[in-house]
Amino acid sequence: MNALDGFLAGDIRSLSRLISQVENRADGYQQMLARLYPKTGRSIRLGITGPPGSGKSTLVNGLAHLFIGDGKRVGIMAVDPTSPFTGGALLGDRVRMNEFPTDGTIYFRSMATRGATGGLSAATDDVALVYDAFGFDVTIMETVGVGQVELDVIDACDTVVVVIVPESGDAVQTMKAGLMEIADVFCVNKSDRPGSERIAAEISQMLGMRKKIEGGWSVPVVSTEATNRKNVDLLHKRIGEHLAFIKGNGQFERHRREQLRKKVLHYLRNRFQREFLDHIGEQAEFDRLIDDIFSGRTDPFSLTDDLYARFARR
Amino acid sequence: MNALDGFLAGDIRSLSRLISQVENRADGYQQMLARLYPKTGRSIRLGITGPPGSGKSTLVNGLAHLFIGDGKRVGIMAVDPTSPFTGGALLGDRVRMNEFPTDGTIYFRSMATRGATGGLSAATDDVALVYDAFGFDVTIMETVGVGQVELDVIDACDTVVVVIVPESGDAVQTMKAGLMEIADVFCVNKSDRPGSERIAAEISQMLGMRKKIEGGWSVPVVSTEATNRKNVDLLHKRIGEHLAFIKGNGQFERHRREQLRKKVLHYLRNRFQREFLDHIGEQAEFDRLIDDIFSGRTDPFSLTDDLYARFARR
Repeated sequence: MNALDGFLAGDIRSLSRLISQVENRADGYQQMLARLYPKTGRSIRLGITGPPGSGKSTLVNGLAHLFIGDGKRVGIMAVDPTSPFTGGALLGDRVRMNEFPTDGTIYFRSMATRGATGGLSAATDDVALVYDAFGFDVTIMETVGVGQVELDVIDACDTVVVVIVPESGDAVQTMKAGLMEIADVFCVNKSDRPGSERIAAEISQMLGMRKKIEGGWSVPVVSTEATNRKNVDLLHKRIGEHLAFIKGNGQFERHRREQLRKKVLHYLRNRFQREFLDHIGEQAEFDRLIDDIFSGRTDPFSLTDDLYARFARR
Repeated sequence: MNALDGFLAGDIRSLSRLISQVENRADGYQQMLARLYPKTGRSIRLGITGPPGSGKSTLVNGLAHLFIGDGKRVGIMAVDPTSPFTGGALLGDRVRMNEFPTDGTIYFRSMATRGATGGLSAATDDVALVYDAFGFDVTIMETVGVGQVELDVIDACDTVVVVIVPESGDAVQTMKAGLMEIADVFCVNKSDRPGSERIAAEISQMLGMRKKIEGGWSVPVVSTEATNRKNVDLLHKRIGEHLAFIKGNGQFERHRREQLRKKVLHYLRNRFQREFLDHIGEQAEFDRLIDDIFSGRTDPFSLTDDLYARFARR
């Protein structure tokens, strides 16, 4: 049985193999995604972001149990662009998933870092399609911090939960870090620690000062203790409310549509890079043309015109 | 007299106008650069990078005086991707240039930040061509820190001076910040401050541990006090030695060639973005095609194939 047939039959190991192919941009992965595409469109995408040590994993696991309790299947993807430097994540991941059944109700994957900035978020997006096609009702994207990669990943989510802890600093720092703009729901985790009430109040106040939230949604602040499962149900409830809200006012569909536009343009850009730029860069003729610049027979601008005209229909 | 004629006649105000056109990507700027290109190829490019407060401006001014003393004309470009946030740079810049004659021997420009990461370094590179064509023998690119933009700017320089101060931390931090790899010459400025000798010794030692410097150049460490002009002449000498070294072993030309390859590929990528992607993104037809995805008539991958085929010759 090949990976695609296995995948379509619901085999978890085939799912893993397909994801690896997508992650590695193996030959034919786009044809494969095109075949899976008609099966997509049902999974909601939940983004959970916050600094290292804010308890995201425990929180995500807690939420996953609640979604499973609702009869949903859950796919989790952890994206940490810095992970090759911090290391050791994979072992931790396996331990983390021990508390769940292995019957395909839940699936977890750490995304390895790709070289290019655009690379990781694009691969993450493609893997989310695979999750969706496999039948996960909820896709949880777990990211660290708010670098460009994380922002791109989070941007593709329907609902975004920003997790902070009392140690993260005050509301002004949170705002400066760009977290205010991306949060649909705020979560102050480790709320048993000193300063928790203060930071929750500060953030609520600052959110209240925002003149107008898109479509009229008031971003709620939920204080949780993920290790004791305290208030994780409340967080789960708020997430559900946000999803219902954006589905009700059309924002959900508008956002998905915008993501799709970006995705097609991104694929086109990649195609041009791969099928034209990577190709000419390797050719001996290109070196000769560069020589022509040095010898004054052409210049970089005229050469660009010539090369582009050879490639593009007018 | 139009700006190009004025420029060719050596008029400084025309130079400023042309630079603004290049910075703003005004219509026809590439045709203009193509016309100037035959006049380029003589200016050397010196990169000076270091953290805010390390005294780069004073150091650059000191070096500029020495280059002018050699009979050279000097163009300076300051690139600070964070400047719209810090503000106030422009007034400081004018004060800074007060110590120089206004006869065209020296010219200074702060580069405004462009939206895209690729944008600023590409614009900087184009402006460096304008400097070169105008007749500046030495182009000094002054950058803050080592973000991606700064690295791209610095990468295009023939000789790179990394400036640190005793407060910058120890050699290990300098190495971690990626400064060891890019330095052709190290400068410990404000060397009257405590810790200066220690950091200079640490960096020398760590540089000595690098197995092999490209082409056999040993990166010198120069301790300066730019405000008193102390040892700036020594720094100037080391820069000259590095330039002579890379010109002697062919590294200078290889590097320039590689930059030119990158530049042409970059222009081609921009062309594709501007003439194809920006264009289709605006068309009503694109929206209809996105609708076709939602209605299941196509998928993002097949649509990418179709759009690409319309564009590219095969």
